[in-house]
Amino acid sequence: MTAPEVWFEDLPAGRRIALGTVVVDHDEMLAFNRRFDPQPFHVDEEAARASLFGGLCASGWFTASLWMRCYVDSVLSRSASMGSPGGDEIAWPAPVFPGDRLEAGMEVVAARVSASRPQLGLITLTGTLTRDGATEVFRARFTGMFGRRDGDAATG
Amino acid sequence: MTAPEVWFEDLPAGRRIALGTVVVDHDEMLAFNRRFDPQPFHVDEEAARASLFGGLCASGWFTASLWMRCYVDSVLSRSASMGSPGGDEIAWPAPVFPGDRLEAGMEVVAARVSASRPQLGLITLTGTLTRDGATEVFRARFTGMFGRRDGDAATG
Repeated sequence: MTAPEVWFEDLPAGRRIALGTVVVDHDEMLAFNRRFDPQPFHVDEEAARASLFGGLCASGWFTASLWMRCYVDSVLSRSASMGSPGGDEIAWPAPVFPGDRLEAGMEVVAARVSASRPQLGLITLTGTLTRDGATEVFRARFTGMFGRRDGDAATG
Repeated sequence: MTAPEVWFEDLPAGRRIALGTVVVDHDEMLAFNRRFDPQPFHVDEEAARASLFGGLCASGWFTASLWMRCYVDSVLSRSASMGSPGGDEIAWPAPVFPGDRLEAGMEVVAARVSASRPQLGLITLTGTLTRDGATEVFRARFTGMFGRRDGDAATG
């Protein structure tokens, strides 16, 4: 492993980061849906057309996973990330369909040093996926734990 | 499709349902982690041992997806489910490791008829995965939309 480039101090409240674009692949989506979320509107074309969604659409967990990969590629892979305990919002405000081109983004909404483990910083971030620059299809707000630059220097 | 057996009326507040057991498969977990969440502690044995987690562990989205499959198999596949707009809690209070045997469960915490679409019922449910009957490793609270028995009869 190379040394992290992104630490707690690099993710202050208010920072927005574009996380790139992802296109929803039909076959991968369907394979995911069949394995993890085989509801009719996720795996059966005919049932999906008759559903509220109007067509075969992504499991919300597939959508979340697509966002996660964008976040890892753009931020976490170069970071001192130490995982996430969870969050207080997850939303799928519109269905996601095969071929959709989604822009991934994030915004840091709060950042604080951990009281119990001062070598750690906790950020609250909102992650989003947006279609056609207009329709938000995924939103999640959760906590990320990151090493501190000073914390590392103090213990290293 | 056969007619649904589980409608909004079958999921009143307070109802608890055991959703079966799932064992975390090492190879499937690693493949998921590599595709969607390739952070060092999810894909690299050595880095994982040195991390806070102490070993290679599941992406939180893999854990969520395992719970979802249990929910679909036990409840949604026989139901009038119409998807979910999201929720207000998602938590990974402890890491999940290959070979873990997890018990899935759910509890309905609230249920109400949709004001804008009275043929729909909205339930709020908490889903959980628990290891060894003691350690909660996943918790999510979100809304599920279900058809109403009466709503169906009225429009059918």
